[in-house]
Amino acid sequence: MLFEAIFIIATAASAMTAALAAGRRRMDWFGVCIIACVTALGGGSARDILLNHYPLSWVEDPNLLLIVCVAALATIPLARIVARLRWTFLILDALGLIVFTMIGCNVAIGLGEPPIIVIVAGMITGCVGGVLRDVLCNEVPLLFSSELYATVSIVTGAIYLAGLKFGFPREAVVAAAFLVGFPLRILAIVHKWGMPKFVFDKETW
Amino acid sequence: MLFEAIFIIATAASAMTAALAAGRRRMDWFGVCIIACVTALGGGSARDILLNHYPLSWVEDPNLLLIVCVAALATIPLARIVARLRWTFLILDALGLIVFTMIGCNVAIGLGEPPIIVIVAGMITGCVGGVLRDVLCNEVPLLFSSELYATVSIVTGAIYLAGLKFGFPREAVVAAAFLVGFPLRILAIVHKWGMPKFVFDKETW
Amino acid sequence: MLFEAIFIIATAASAMTAALAAGRRRMDWFGVCIIACVTALGGGSARDILLNHYPLSWVEDPNLLLIVCVAALATIPLARIVARLRWTFLILDALGLIVFTMIGCNVAIGLGEPPIIVIVAGMITGCVGGVLRDVLCNEVPLLFSSELYATVSIVTGAIYLAGLKFGFPREAVVAAAFLVGFPLRILAIVHKWGMPKFVFDKETW
Repeated sequence: MLFEAIFIIATAASAMTAALAAGRRRMDWFGVCIIACVTALGGGSARDILLNHYPLSWVEDPNLLLIVCVAALATIPLARIVARLRWTFLILDALGLIVFTMIGCNVAIGLGEPPIIVIVAGMITGCVGGVLRDVLCNEVPLLFSSELYATVSIVTGAIYLAGLKFGFPREAVVAAAFLVGFPLRILAIVHKWGMPKFVFDKETW
Repeated sequence: MLFEAIFIIATAASAMTAALAAGRRRMDWFGVCIIACVTALGGGSARDILLNHYPLSWVEDPNLLLIVCVAALATIPLARIVARLRWTFLILDALGLIVFTMIGCNVAIGLGEPPIIVIVAGMITGCVGGVLRDVLCNEVPLLFSSELYATVSIVTGAIYLAGLKFGFPREAVVAAAFLVGFPLRILAIVHKWGMPKFVFDKETW
Repeated sequence: MLFEAIFIIATAASAMTAALAAGRRRMDWFGVCIIACVTALGGGSARDILLNHYPLSWVEDPNLLLIVCVAALATIPLARIVARLRWTFLILDALGLIVFTMIGCNVAIGLGEPPIIVIVAGMITGCVGGVLRDVLCNEVPLLFSSELYATVSIVTGAIYLAGLKFGFPREAVVAAAFLVGFPLRILAIVHKWGMPKFVFDKETW
């Protein structure tokens, strides 16, 4: 199934970009694997822990760990090539964001959660991995200040949930989510669209 | 009920001070909402995950997420005013600390946990949100070095638990917790009371 | 039982070295206790949350919290002495790594997890506490760039699991894990053996 294929490819792609971040921090091969696992699998794990949805995906299917570690370690000799393929990875990451979001929504729908939680579950699945990566790399998470990312996930989740609620066939709803979410993310990168910033410089407290 | 009202107001107040912290880090509006949610709801969520107490409060009642995000976003245009109301927010935060602590104790009592865990559950509920905020803002948590805060939570929890164990009526116990915990926190701020510091400068290891 | 004794001693030792790390960050006594608890008990707690294995060890037996806090606070007056006993603590830490790893493997085996998850559970138990300590102290985790540590845990877990699978008596398997894991860790410290580093300095993305 195409959906599954995109999931695996996007997971591997996010492991590879995480490996580059680990390399910038001069981590060893083990650190590279851990950062890759946390980035690629941390969003889904955070969602499952918050929603009490066990077993976690990688505990149920440990092959996910192997795919992520192989992708991360393969990045080491290929780092210069991967770094040159910026747009390939941005596109894979955007596809992954849409897929992860819909998977997260599906989990929350399956648990009978209300609409807000369904959309939040999609966003957590798509976004938290990158936050955990930045925390482990000792940086303020990029997610909180760069181009639209979580917003794309929220929009995608809302379309997906609304489409299913209105009874459209699942294939059409998935297609609609891709057709809105993917170009939105790509346009946000190209035009540097971001949410407005809140800059507060007074150090009163 | 007054207790419930203080809970909602304190939650909103903690979202607003978290929003200022996000503004100092120049985050975007989305980042402001996330930092506010993590700060205001993270303590209770950490407690529930550690004690296996599901569903989390904001999953069961997603209105909490809305209240927190509205309070956080409202802080953006009002930042200068909020910053001037330092004492209003310190007082709301102190009230919140007492309320959150007692809620946390109640959860652990309901699960039949032993006394130490009841007090720890209260402290986690009152204090962990601020720790998560500081980790996401890439700072060493203030909690570990500033005026008495966790200590106030522990004292409050101990009074609350002891009062209930000795069979005093709940209203009296809640009142006693407020009457000890609230002035203790306020006095700690005024007089800069802190725990003794452990300063160790040798870099041997 | 010797195993149990090593577990308690290693837990206390890891609380003491964590207290020194907190002292270097000039934390107060409360912060020292929290850093010690997170370091000494965080690995097992992370494992249990990821595997849905409740109650957490310190919730079931709150004496663990007391042992950790007493060990951490006792470190404050003894800091100069503790700092001079570097090798004593490195040896206790190495013994603890082996014991924690086997305990983690046992939990996963008891839950019927597949072999990879058993080994990962051992590694999480042995290693995550130190990662959480470094995150709370606002540092890039040492685990990702220093001498072999997680690798020792993985090797130990693999020997332990394989030994049990092949039907050797438990005492022999535990002894084999110690006989391989302990010298491996000590040799890694002495000879500064580490995993190869991945250094990637291009700031393209």
